[in-house]
Amino acid sequence: MEKPARTNHPMHDIISGRWSPRALDPAKPVSREHLASLLEAARWAPSCFGDEPWRYIVWDRFIDPDSWQRAFECMVPGNQAWAKNAPILMLSIADTLFEFNASPNRFGQYDTGAASENLVLQAHALGLAAHQMGGFDPDKARSAFSVPERYACMSMIAVGHPASPDILDAGLKEKELADRSRKPVESRFFEGSWGIPVKIA
Amino acid sequence: MEKPARTNHPMHDIISGRWSPRALDPAKPVSREHLASLLEAARWAPSCFGDEPWRYIVWDRFIDPDSWQRAFECMVPGNQAWAKNAPILMLSIADTLFEFNASPNRFGQYDTGAASENLVLQAHALGLAAHQMGGFDPDKARSAFSVPERYACMSMIAVGHPASPDILDAGLKEKELADRSRKPVESRFFEGSWGIPVKIA
Repeated sequence: MEKPARTNHPMHDIISGRWSPRALDPAKPVSREHLASLLEAARWAPSCFGDEPWRYIVWDRFIDPDSWQRAFECMVPGNQAWAKNAPILMLSIADTLFEFNASPNRFGQYDTGAASENLVLQAHALGLAAHQMGGFDPDKARSAFSVPERYACMSMIAVGHPASPDILDAGLKEKELADRSRKPVESRFFEGSWGIPVKIA
Repeated sequence: MEKPARTNHPMHDIISGRWSPRALDPAKPVSREHLASLLEAARWAPSCFGDEPWRYIVWDRFIDPDSWQRAFECMVPGNQAWAKNAPILMLSIADTLFEFNASPNRFGQYDTGAASENLVLQAHALGLAAHQMGGFDPDKARSAFSVPERYACMSMIAVGHPASPDILDAGLKEKELADRSRKPVESRFFEGSWGIPVKIA
């Protein structure tokens, strides 16, 4: 199912076409070739001082169902309701310190968000569905998977092949079929100084 | 100049081809149509609860040179040395609170990093050069442009048309021509638990 952004101005297909589907095919694994491309896309994101502060942990239900299940159990029920079908779960993790000198890295989360955007755009380019979630217990994930204290657990990412929205229950199906929307440009994009709307048509 | 990533696995052209050039054409403005597409790409990034925590301030040297100059003066000398040629500077800014209920948003910087990645990928897709910098004084920028305390100033972004590396001084030209590189996959991408390298070829 395609849900291209209703854009005010043209943008590249993989940016306008990317969205966060919930309907995933439970029977179809993600190939290792596709997984490798997703991680490679994240790997080539830009970062402050080239520190590459992102880390990812991958769980593949078709390879290690027990670990996948432990990751699944970190999610809130509202996300479990659809992410149960995801063949792959991932956790994005941000270093709070620079690797090269262990001083605070105030760009760790920002750069990790960029890497994850590359990852989900690459998923879309391959015809996969990728959906990031803030709704999980980061402390439980840290404990379950031995994430050291200096790193921040950021986002769970469900990845799989798209399925019909009919596999979702009624409430989720309604969300899946709803139009995508964004807030007005003038609320977010300024020119010259804070609060002055940018001058684009 | 093209510097495609030396990838281990295939990825989409706009992801593999994006890099952070320093050689910008000082005489060629960025059209409002192109600027609109860059901001639109940022606007359609994903965000936790759809809160869209990013904000951007744009300065266009061909439209408002005084404001552009004030933004320029927030940068460290090492960045000024090449960003002086940028027709457009932008600042990415992250909300630390959710807009919908004013509670802390731990995804504000992460989501803003995603929006900026969309922006720089869209720039690359249009044949523009976009280069993010952490090297600026965020307090000076906050004061100069009235950024409210609840928002974090994240990254300065120089945007322009690419130019020959010959316009750079010797040290910067060397950086401009250097190969791009990334750290080994196994240092960043794990499977099953922290520190266990992901199993991809």
